Amino acid sequence: MSVNLAVVGATGAVGRIVLEQLALRKLPINRLKLLASQRSVGKEVRFADETLKVQLLEPDAFQGIDIVVASTPDEVSAEFASWATDAGAVVVDESGYWRMDPKVPLVIPEVNPEAIHDHQGIIASPNCSTTQMVVALAALHRHCPVRRVVVSTYQATSGAGLAGNEELYDSTRSALTGKTHPAKTFQYPIAFNLIPQIGSEKEAGYTSEEMKMVYETRKIMGDDDIVVCPTCVRVPVTIGHSESILVETADPISVDKARELFAAAPGVTLVDDLDNKQYPMPQDCEGKDDVFVGRVRKDLSSPNGLAFWCVSDNLRKGAATNAVQIAELLIQKLAAASS
Amino acid sequence: MSVNLAVVGATGAVGRIVLEQLALRKLPINRLKLLASQRSVGKEVRFADETLKVQLLEPDAFQGIDIVVASTPDEVSAEFASWATDAGAVVVDESGYWRMDPKVPLVIPEVNPEAIHDHQGIIASPNCSTTQMVVALAALHRHCPVRRVVVSTYQATSGAGLAGNEELYDSTRSALTGKTHPAKTFQYPIAFNLIPQIGSEKEAGYTSEEMKMVYETRKIMGDDDIVVCPTCVRVPVTIGHSESILVETADPISVDKARELFAAAPGVTLVDDLDNKQYPMPQDCEGKDDVFVGRVRKDLSSPNGLAFWCVSDNLRKGAATNAVQIAELLIQKLAAASS
Repeated sequence: MSVNLAVVGATGAVGRIVLEQLALRKLPINRLKLLASQRSVGKEVRFADETLKVQLLEPDAFQGIDIVVASTPDEVSAEFASWATDAGAVVVDESGYWRMDPKVPLVIPEVNPEAIHDHQGIIASPNCSTTQMVVALAALHRHCPVRRVVVSTYQATSGAGLAGNEELYDSTRSALTGKTHPAKTFQYPIAFNLIPQIGSEKEAGYTSEEMKMVYETRKIMGDDDIVVCPTCVRVPVTIGHSESILVETADPISVDKARELFAAAPGVTLVDDLDNKQYPMPQDCEGKDDVFVGRVRKDLSSPNGLAFWCVSDNLRKGAATNAVQIAELLIQKLAAASS
Repeated sequence: MSVNLAVVGATGAVGRIVLEQLALRKLPINRLKLLASQRSVGKEVRFADETLKVQLLEPDAFQGIDIVVASTPDEVSAEFASWATDAGAVVVDESGYWRMDPKVPLVIPEVNPEAIHDHQGIIASPNCSTTQMVVALAALHRHCPVRRVVVSTYQATSGAGLAGNEELYDSTRSALTGKTHPAKTFQYPIAFNLIPQIGSEKEAGYTSEEMKMVYETRKIMGDDDIVVCPTCVRVPVTIGHSESILVETADPISVDKARELFAAAPGVTLVDDLDNKQYPMPQDCEGKDDVFVGRVRKDLSSPNGLAFWCVSDNLRKGAATNAVQIAELLIQKLAAASS
């Protein structure tokens, strides 16, 4: 069983890691096609031992393709997805465009792998800040239902792509020499600063990024009774989103039990020994695929609450890795169907 | 009415601003004495139009002094406070040493000014992260009792003094040129990183900084039923602590009412217009005395909850400004007693 696979947005911050992951995880690829907008056409990209040329993302680019892994802005995804599905391909989409469409499964392989079976040509991968939170919450939810989540994020500049990291580095260099650097990717200078806005205003004072954490969490966990209060903040860190999470469950979960559940959960690494200064930090999670959990403790403000700290590489589990894992599930499904 | 005033720790990050504030707010000072450890003795410091020499902090340094404003480490405060009170001075202390002593009032002038009347020679100024939160919470509490607080902090490196900022700048310069810089002031490199530990482990998985937010909040607000779940995180920002706060009150408070309460509260500036990208950020709060509040919205996870974002210059309202305001209250009290 091998597949013809197209990567859309192959030259972006996430697309590059999608290619790394496809090679690293040894997906059974027969033919690999790299697609992007006109600007990137002709660029050469290394994949395993080959050099591939980026081709134009256009309506007939998907002939003969089985699976598409796409990391593009929402508006690009809105346009090309039907080109791919019309050609018979299944699209694993990392944009925000399709996630809340009732016909589109929203999948984290460690949490709701069964959801891929209901796809109608498109499967969405969740928002980066949602993915890492839900991987961690699911570890508890399987034991005792999650009822309420209060989350404050500390999100890296690479969440805004390569341009975000460049802006952080350039503006930091400027700040260190007493100069100002105009903000382009972000709303304000991000060097030595925090910006409590990610995305645009969406509803009732919450941003679009925050509302993703509300709606996507419910959809992935399959429980519309879970309430979430999110605050999303951009911080001057290049890679690795961090989250301070308070979770209330239907019944109390002891700290020891929570640690046991996190340690045993697929995709989670527990790093939790405050006395010995062991907890997850962005610098330690960069380039890794897991969701790292630490600072696990009883909520001092509710009987059924737990507080914890969660860090993950936003370009990996938050984007590329999750999408490639979905592609793996699709290939398993194709293999099962053909056997 | 004028007083003899001593500043202890006059050459530190906070001490410098104490001097600025004394001059700016025109405290009626007859004689000003600067005290510090042996290392700083003889240093010359400008105050208003004078140049003053730093003198040794020693047992008989407080003769004739009425009020002491002190910014020192806990262990220094533990030692010198009785030297000052034995000489008849009142100590306004910014260290953590005396704050939870039942004989010591813990005061934020906008919140519990009446508490200064019960002093027995020492009045404590709260921890920086607590002060700004309580100034904001008090605006709501006066209208409807605060019952529960969930807070995640984003704390600046200057919270660890001048050495903290130097370490952020030096390690950032190193990181930009691909070098590593050893962490001394902080547990780990802080450049482009986050450290979810401030202080040492105190109890049940919470740090000493976090437990300050639990206990000091109750003491200042005079309500032991307020429950607080804090997460304190160091971020690569030099000045300005930020806090993501969820507060539950005894009855619901509408967003409009909350904004009205914040806007009218002493010491609070409301900056809250997400549609027009207006919210508090560290870069805008540096060098200002107020607590800045924005992103005010209904909690999506509880009927009586509100979420908001709060930023304040941790060296000013979080330390120097609050202590100088307490000194002002003491001078008013002395003036009232002598009239």
